[in-house]
Amino acid sequence: MPVSDTVGLINHVQNAYARCIDDGKLEEWPDFFEDDCVYKITTVDNYAQGLEAGVIFANSKGMLRDRVASLREANIYERHLYRHFLGQAWIISEVADEVRSETSFIVARIMRDGTTDVYATGRYVDAYRLNGGKPKLRERIVVCDSSRFDTLLALPL
Amino acid sequence: MPVSDTVGLINHVQNAYARCIDDGKLEEWPDFFEDDCVYKITTVDNYAQGLEAGVIFANSKGMLRDRVASLREANIYERHLYRHFLGQAWIISEVADEVRSETSFIVARIMRDGTTDVYATGRYVDAYRLNGGKPKLRERIVVCDSSRFDTLLALPL
Amino acid sequence: MPVSDTVGLINHVQNAYARCIDDGKLEEWPDFFEDDCVYKITTVDNYAQGLEAGVIFANSKGMLRDRVASLREANIYERHLYRHFLGQAWIISEVADEVRSETSFIVARIMRDGTTDVYATGRYVDAYRLNGGKPKLRERIVVCDSSRFDTLLALPL
Repeated sequence: MPVSDTVGLINHVQNAYARCIDDGKLEEWPDFFEDDCVYKITTVDNYAQGLEAGVIFANSKGMLRDRVASLREANIYERHLYRHFLGQAWIISEVADEVRSETSFIVARIMRDGTTDVYATGRYVDAYRLNGGKPKLRERIVVCDSSRFDTLLALPL
Repeated sequence: MPVSDTVGLINHVQNAYARCIDDGKLEEWPDFFEDDCVYKITTVDNYAQGLEAGVIFANSKGMLRDRVASLREANIYERHLYRHFLGQAWIISEVADEVRSETSFIVARIMRDGTTDVYATGRYVDAYRLNGGKPKLRERIVVCDSSRFDTLLALPL
Repeated sequence: MPVSDTVGLINHVQNAYARCIDDGKLEEWPDFFEDDCVYKITTVDNYAQGLEAGVIFANSKGMLRDRVASLREANIYERHLYRHFLGQAWIISEVADEVRSETSFIVARIMRDGTTDVYATGRYVDAYRLNGGKPKLRERIVVCDSSRFDTLLALPL
């Protein structure tokens, strides 16, 4: 069980990712991805069965930008705050410039009236390109533990 | 306050431990322990008073295996998912091959209907044998903050 | 995006800070601060608007000690347990002996009847003096996500 520097690097980028969303800087969110990328939100049941259908699917940075634009228009994002907590990244493989990792997440949601609950838990199944120390996501599959999705699911996870 | 490499090593093993349970690979769970080990779940009140009685007690890897077997038979484990989050390990002492550490944990439980709540919080009071870079638990005392235990308490913490 | 050793050092001190409060050793809490310090609890709305008014304000270690003394007298602190979880520190700047960092936190509260809920989430906005490897807080602004504060808000965050 080697503890590589890659863990520290991935932890660092994922901390930046969580800060970006929690601080409401959604316009910067697509920049954590490669131009050619996959972003998918699915459930643990679907993922285990190999089903492709996800709650949300995008396969380019442009689609992620479109998503942010429509969120901004709808103003839905203003209703709540989110707070992400990530476990330490678990490195599955590191081959040439590509790192595959999995990371647990828990997201708390803070409603405008101050109520706070556990909004979502699950794990990120990621493929990062290292790009010489500035890793970008080539693929992020957000595997949610719960199959019950709030219809307000709007913000990126 | 030295920040030793031991912290990184223990964090890494504990990440693997959490993944093992959260991924439902219970058969692999006993392998995080030495053959001759103590595993105990107790409450913060009992622990502070030095009471031996715990909710769950095992003193060999064989007992841990028996526990997993009975969980599998009862199928209780299929009803929920769990998601562990661990703080950074705090090294209490490191003498020869043995590291004593404490680590905060929070476990979210995801019911089959999708409801998610905070299932348990507390800290692991651990004694690890380093075994040349492949640490195993000689003792894990799971000290839960709450004295109210769900009767479904079944999965390892 | 450099991953500096400072992250490890700040993570370590913050782990100690969380342990101090969660273990109920409140008398040791002021020692995480410089003699001349600022400790403030405020909300994300107030903080964003640059409002000075906070829920709690102290500008010396003496005031922190007074606060602990009054908590001990009132015995309020015995009613609940708290469990802090901190994200990885994010280093904003490091100039000479001073590090500015931000860190997400989530605090679970365990009532005497065993009920556990998410008590508070937010981020620490900190200025640490490194003091040759023994960092102390010159300023901690606790920016809570929720604007609804429990009237029992008593323990340090």
